Amino acid sequence: MKRAVYPGSFDPVTNGHLDVIERASRLFDEVIVAVAFNDEKNPLFASSKRIELLEGVVGGMGNVRVVEFQGLLIDYAHAQQATAIVRGLRAISDFEFEFQMALMNRKLNPEVETVFMMPREEYTYLSSRIVKEIARLGGNVGAFVPHSIAVALKERFSELDAQNEVKS
Amino acid sequence: MKRAVYPGSFDPVTNGHLDVIERASRLFDEVIVAVAFNDEKNPLFASSKRIELLEGVVGGMGNVRVVEFQGLLIDYAHAQQATAIVRGLRAISDFEFEFQMALMNRKLNPEVETVFMMPREEYTYLSSRIVKEIARLGGNVGAFVPHSIAVALKERFSELDAQNEVKS
Amino acid sequence: MKRAVYPGSFDPVTNGHLDVIERASRLFDEVIVAVAFNDEKNPLFASSKRIELLEGVVGGMGNVRVVEFQGLLIDYAHAQQATAIVRGLRAISDFEFEFQMALMNRKLNPEVETVFMMPREEYTYLSSRIVKEIARLGGNVGAFVPHSIAVALKERFSELDAQNEVKS
Amino acid sequence: MKRAVYPGSFDPVTNGHLDVIERASRLFDEVIVAVAFNDEKNPLFASSKRIELLEGVVGGMGNVRVVEFQGLLIDYAHAQQATAIVRGLRAISDFEFEFQMALMNRKLNPEVETVFMMPREEYTYLSSRIVKEIARLGGNVGAFVPHSIAVALKERFSELDAQNEVKS
Amino acid sequence: MKRAVYPGSFDPVTNGHLDVIERASRLFDEVIVAVAFNDEKNPLFASSKRIELLEGVVGGMGNVRVVEFQGLLIDYAHAQQATAIVRGLRAISDFEFEFQMALMNRKLNPEVETVFMMPREEYTYLSSRIVKEIARLGGNVGAFVPHSIAVALKERFSELDAQNEVKS
Amino acid sequence: MKRAVYPGSFDPVTNGHLDVIERASRLFDEVIVAVAFNDEKNPLFASSKRIELLEGVVGGMGNVRVVEFQGLLIDYAHAQQATAIVRGLRAISDFEFEFQMALMNRKLNPEVETVFMMPREEYTYLSSRIVKEIARLGGNVGAFVPHSIAVALKERFSELDAQNEVKS
Repeated sequence: MKRAVYPGSFDPVTNGHLDVIERASRLFDEVIVAVAFNDEKNPLFASSKRIELLEGVVGGMGNVRVVEFQGLLIDYAHAQQATAIVRGLRAISDFEFEFQMALMNRKLNPEVETVFMMPREEYTYLSSRIVKEIARLGGNVGAFVPHSIAVALKERFSELDAQNEVKS
Repeated sequence: MKRAVYPGSFDPVTNGHLDVIERASRLFDEVIVAVAFNDEKNPLFASSKRIELLEGVVGGMGNVRVVEFQGLLIDYAHAQQATAIVRGLRAISDFEFEFQMALMNRKLNPEVETVFMMPREEYTYLSSRIVKEIARLGGNVGAFVPHSIAVALKERFSELDAQNEVKS
Repeated sequence: MKRAVYPGSFDPVTNGHLDVIERASRLFDEVIVAVAFNDEKNPLFASSKRIELLEGVVGGMGNVRVVEFQGLLIDYAHAQQATAIVRGLRAISDFEFEFQMALMNRKLNPEVETVFMMPREEYTYLSSRIVKEIARLGGNVGAFVPHSIAVALKERFSELDAQNEVKS
Repeated sequence: MKRAVYPGSFDPVTNGHLDVIERASRLFDEVIVAVAFNDEKNPLFASSKRIELLEGVVGGMGNVRVVEFQGLLIDYAHAQQATAIVRGLRAISDFEFEFQMALMNRKLNPEVETVFMMPREEYTYLSSRIVKEIARLGGNVGAFVPHSIAVALKERFSELDAQNEVKS
Repeated sequence: MKRAVYPGSFDPVTNGHLDVIERASRLFDEVIVAVAFNDEKNPLFASSKRIELLEGVVGGMGNVRVVEFQGLLIDYAHAQQATAIVRGLRAISDFEFEFQMALMNRKLNPEVETVFMMPREEYTYLSSRIVKEIARLGGNVGAFVPHSIAVALKERFSELDAQNEVKS
Repeated sequence: MKRAVYPGSFDPVTNGHLDVIERASRLFDEVIVAVAFNDEKNPLFASSKRIELLEGVVGGMGNVRVVEFQGLLIDYAHAQQATAIVRGLRAISDFEFEFQMALMNRKLNPEVETVFMMPREEYTYLSSRIVKEIARLGGNVGAFVPHSIAVALKERFSELDAQNEVKS
């Protein structure tokens, strides 16, 4: 059985992530979506919330599981007996960073291969960072994330605005 | 009438920005230099000062206006009935980020086109960040910004040094 | 009046070219699609045929003219009193070559500005070369070029096959 | 069963190609190395020879087959019921071209996924073209290709030199 | 006599840095490894410690000196009568940033030339940042830094963990 | 003594090449400008003419010699006891190709180091190919090459035009 790990912060999951997960689920027998506990300094959503949001949108894919991981990705992937780490490639800047990480991981453990997949071209400009920026400024993110994520973003920014008002 | 918006932080304006503004002013009937209020976490100059400095150096160009904007750029451009957003392209790293933003903006509102222009090649290495770094270390920025900006940078760093001495 | 020149070989025109022409026609008062007579060593279509095919698909755009040009592009643009040369930017490799050409043209004549526009993201991978390769191998190019161009490609390759059979 | 197609000209196969084939053979149940019949205008080796050389070096990998193909790669992959097309990514220039091809192939047939793998970093600078250039100039290619390929290169260039002497 | 300055944060020195220092020491009569005092906001090691660690690993190279510098690099290089600034180039992202800095430095002082050298390809993915991240997560960095640096990293992270425990 | 080899086709030498030669002559004790005999399929100028043109423009630099070489560059550099091969870096596309060549050369002979230098930014868009294209179309290349080269280009294209007229 070929198992793949698809790691990320998913703060929050976008349509681009979902597209890669779907493609990976057709290529591998099992896909573990591994949510990095401590990847971002100040995540918008706690890792437990990010996992809950992910589980809500990958439900239809039978061979996909969402988990949290801490520590080195390569150690986690090895412990899960994964054949491969899956990464989405969107642009040149991705490419360089991803290559660095993949070569480093190969050095740390040559048994786990990194494979790169392409999201649909209309998602090449998508990133969690940009989605959060648009949502923060009140823009409509309906074309970039699933409905449940758009709702969660709206709630979260209302929450933060309320906190800021209390403070000031 | 074709109106263009040229957005940025302009913290502070450099000779590279000025070069793009001049080129845009020959291409469009009107150019709005739109200073982002909250783009940088800790700007060196307040947005009101950045606007004042900009107005001092674009005075000679009759069809250029300097304004402050908040919120989503694309909404601002649309409200101004702009035909285009103008962006300067200097290098590959610009290119990728700018493309992401332009595609995102097109998705949010397909009526406003993004056009890219090239500053003079001697300005390709210029950025507000590098100019500030050189000025902070006491270097001569006379070749990179208009005289009034060089003076403002010197004053601002003297001010900050004085504050730091008081604190320590 | 702002006039722009959009130069190329157009051997043949693709949906990506058409998309840029449409965007330029909204930005400028007039757009001249300038077909390079001798740009490619062995064009698939003669320049007269390339112009005929182009005229068939830009008919609906009132401010677009198709012409043939020889010699230096920058001299042609200047003679036409063009304000700008328009180029489509799809990828990093485009970017570098286009920048070289634009800087060279600016050196030869600083009065004509080069502006870059982005085709729709689903056309970023399109090129006349790839379209010809697929058509040559019998693939369906219906998603990449207008119908009249797909027909012309089929006819042209049948013609070439017939010639090859006669030779062998 | 997951079957992958690894296409190329392999004129001739290098250590970099072999490295990708080995990695793919661990990831997929079966790997078809598909030698393009007509990819290069003037190949150094005929396609039958390229296949013979490839078969000599992939012999130890039980789930790898070498075949020749003509026509569109995507049609061939589909006819073989392949889940994926495998491509090696070495550098930025690869990246752009490969992305264009992969997006085009996805448009032609969305059922076959393209996945990218990284050869060992010491092979990132390897290409059949550079190996041929070094061999042609009498350099030692022992570090870049298997022994049997080095021998074949030497024989082939002796053959060509002999032909040239006869001509002149 | 040709003297070169090789500047950096060296927080901490990696095998990639060492490789460039060795290459530079063969090319120039003297190499000054210049440790930037204030380059990083929150360095892992104080500059005095970074210098101590560097001196421990460049000891065998007779024409290499390690020094601390403050202020503008170009002024320091000029004061040292250096002919050149040496920079290692690993990847495209390096390339752009390095070019910006080199062109800026040339503008500030055209007498000091910047030359670029390539580390061994197996070090192209190495950076102090990635090494620190792996060490922080408990990974083995033995393949990426000299033994003394690996020891220092382990000690430093134990120290930081102890401090954090006291705080919480 | 540190000797460097600066290889190329120089068909013909441009201001960009000259700029790199001058920079290298300040960095090394001796610079050998090595003209590749057979690098281009159909050079505009014979290698003897390219050498003559080069010698005419590097005359003032006492430590620069112009020579022709055949075969592998790395073998030539080693035979000349060169410490380094010098290459100009202008753009990303240069970067990738140059890195491939440099890594390959290092594999063939680790004793000769490749160092990269930057021409003036106003020459980053210059190439022999573009200069020839402009000269062929009758454009003024006076800003891109020394006067003697501009004259030689004009003569050479007149010569070729005369030959073509005779043929047709």
